[in-house]
Amino acid sequence: MQRQDFPGSPLGLHRVIEPAGALPQAAWRLDPSPGLWPDEARVRVDRLNLDAASFRQLSEAVDGNAAGTDGGHAAAMRAAVLGIVAERGKMQNPVTGSGGMLTGVVAEVGPDSPLGLAPGDRIATLVSLSLTPLAITDGLARWDGRSEQVPCDGHAILFGRSIAAVLPADMPVPLALAVLDVCGAPALTARVVRQAWVGGTAPVVAILGAAGKSGSLSAAAAREAGARLVIGLVPTQAEADLLTASGLADKVVIADARDPAAVAESVRAAGGPAQVTVVCVDVPGCEGGAVLATADRGTVIFFSMATSFSAAALGAEGVAADITMLIGNGYVPGHAALALDLVRAEPGVRKIFESRTAEG
Amino acid sequence: MQRQDFPGSPLGLHRVIEPAGALPQAAWRLDPSPGLWPDEARVRVDRLNLDAASFRQLSEAVDGNAAGTDGGHAAAMRAAVLGIVAERGKMQNPVTGSGGMLTGVVAEVGPDSPLGLAPGDRIATLVSLSLTPLAITDGLARWDGRSEQVPCDGHAILFGRSIAAVLPADMPVPLALAVLDVCGAPALTARVVRQAWVGGTAPVVAILGAAGKSGSLSAAAAREAGARLVIGLVPTQAEADLLTASGLADKVVIADARDPAAVAESVRAAGGPAQVTVVCVDVPGCEGGAVLATADRGTVIFFSMATSFSAAALGAEGVAADITMLIGNGYVPGHAALALDLVRAEPGVRKIFESRTAEG
Repeated sequence: MQRQDFPGSPLGLHRVIEPAGALPQAAWRLDPSPGLWPDEARVRVDRLNLDAASFRQLSEAVDGNAAGTDGGHAAAMRAAVLGIVAERGKMQNPVTGSGGMLTGVVAEVGPDSPLGLAPGDRIATLVSLSLTPLAITDGLARWDGRSEQVPCDGHAILFGRSIAAVLPADMPVPLALAVLDVCGAPALTARVVRQAWVGGTAPVVAILGAAGKSGSLSAAAAREAGARLVIGLVPTQAEADLLTASGLADKVVIADARDPAAVAESVRAAGGPAQVTVVCVDVPGCEGGAVLATADRGTVIFFSMATSFSAAALGAEGVAADITMLIGNGYVPGHAALALDLVRAEPGVRKIFESRTAEG
Repeated sequence: MQRQDFPGSPLGLHRVIEPAGALPQAAWRLDPSPGLWPDEARVRVDRLNLDAASFRQLSEAVDGNAAGTDGGHAAAMRAAVLGIVAERGKMQNPVTGSGGMLTGVVAEVGPDSPLGLAPGDRIATLVSLSLTPLAITDGLARWDGRSEQVPCDGHAILFGRSIAAVLPADMPVPLALAVLDVCGAPALTARVVRQAWVGGTAPVVAILGAAGKSGSLSAAAAREAGARLVIGLVPTQAEADLLTASGLADKVVIADARDPAAVAESVRAAGGPAQVTVVCVDVPGCEGGAVLATADRGTVIFFSMATSFSAAALGAEGVAADITMLIGNGYVPGHAALALDLVRAEPGVRKIFESRTAEG
């Protein structure tokens, strides 16, 4: 089933219904109809993986409406997701703006698709649900509303530039999904650490939130890219124990990432300041500490979606910090393979992921 | 008048009243008392320069309260600014979070101040009012509430790391102030353009909002740093005429910076995509166009405070764009001198600034 009426755009502009001219990510509403433009592919969806911010918002909104019983909660959560997808043609939470990812099996591939996929491939999308045309056909009947992972039947559309990864055969799907969800972080960290080698001297790297998913992968990537010293900052003794047991950081320090002076002092005491600081803490207010923990001419990579652009820009200016601040781009070529390989090579990463994913 | 009771912090942490532990920028309330810690300096303020976003918000709030007559408007604006400064010990608009800058004459310098200032120097602060302890003593009696530039008597405190610039003798104060307000943009643009030289090939640079203050300075800086081609994007024919007359851009194109496809196409048609894209448009929604206008492995510098961190991060990921995205840090060593020199050397920059500052 293909549409040849006019050429599509690799960005999916032809699927935008409103407002005209917007990119699919920014659009209010997409066309999720199953017919393919020549460079598209269609996936039979089996699972949505809602992003944490969206899932939390939906849960709180539903509970605020006093859904009462478990059955009431499940029905209300289903209705919320089904309503968004029916209205928008994609699963983009209108409050948080965020989406998540999906898994499924490739059903049909247009003749001009550049993605290298074949029907029958089991894949995960590496672009956000917030730009992916989606239709749900099973009413989400198998979802209890209590997990971010949503069993689902339906279809989704991949554009020419919608990156997807074939799921690896050698690890459980929930683990692979959790790794792919944050795979941009270790790839960009590795690139920046390599660039930070100055005159033959390897950089010191500080990871804020190093016992989390993106944090542990970034720590492993920093070491593989040749960091001289990896300092992992965590908020509690329990996370410090987890990180120490993983062996991923050379030094483990405990501090509140929102306390700038405490972050700067603890990183300094552990061997900093850092030439590269990586922010993986998903709470607001970590900009100042990251700036102060970073050496002159060093680089901060912000991966947390809770980062405030103006707090970072004005914060660095306010303390006359001559540092480079990067918006963590989730796409770096080869990011999926790099992250999956880190999980295979580093038992410490796998251990942290297994402690943080229900189904391990 | 000096305080020696305990050592101060170059970041001004000792001036934070609440919440404890916050940096002065993030704090709700600072101590603006005139006594100096050893590394501080005190300035007798003669003018506040409110940032555009803050001034607009205050004006709209006051007019929304139906201040009526001109006298009523002025009184309401004065009361608004005086109220904020009295409550917070600094001029940080609680709605926008932004501040502005000030001019004045250095009154006293602590023995350990590293700023190189002497009593009698006429200076402008290059750190935001949002972190500068301030007290106002004249009730703002000379301000009509209609201009961002506020005649003012009072005092302000500079910390050890509060950058300030001595005002140049060879240009009017309003012009110098307007230039210093955005001097981080040309300095960072110049650095990134120099770094973007690849294998002896000079980069193509696109400036979104090139007929504005930061945009025109960034265009001049890009050319001086060796850009092969400077493409200036503006929203209207009037701005295109202004930019063309200035001679600062090799190509001038007209497009709505919020329309991603239009931005990408017009930059491409003018000789793009760009190895370096500089966003100087102070409206929300310019992230997608900047991403699409930028070449593979290129760099986007976001200077606009209207930039959304998540829109940039998810937007680049969503179109699989392997680009570097920088949060525009307002501090680069030597930024004030570089910007003032560009105004002296480039009549086109001065012309644009004069067309955009009331008192020229």
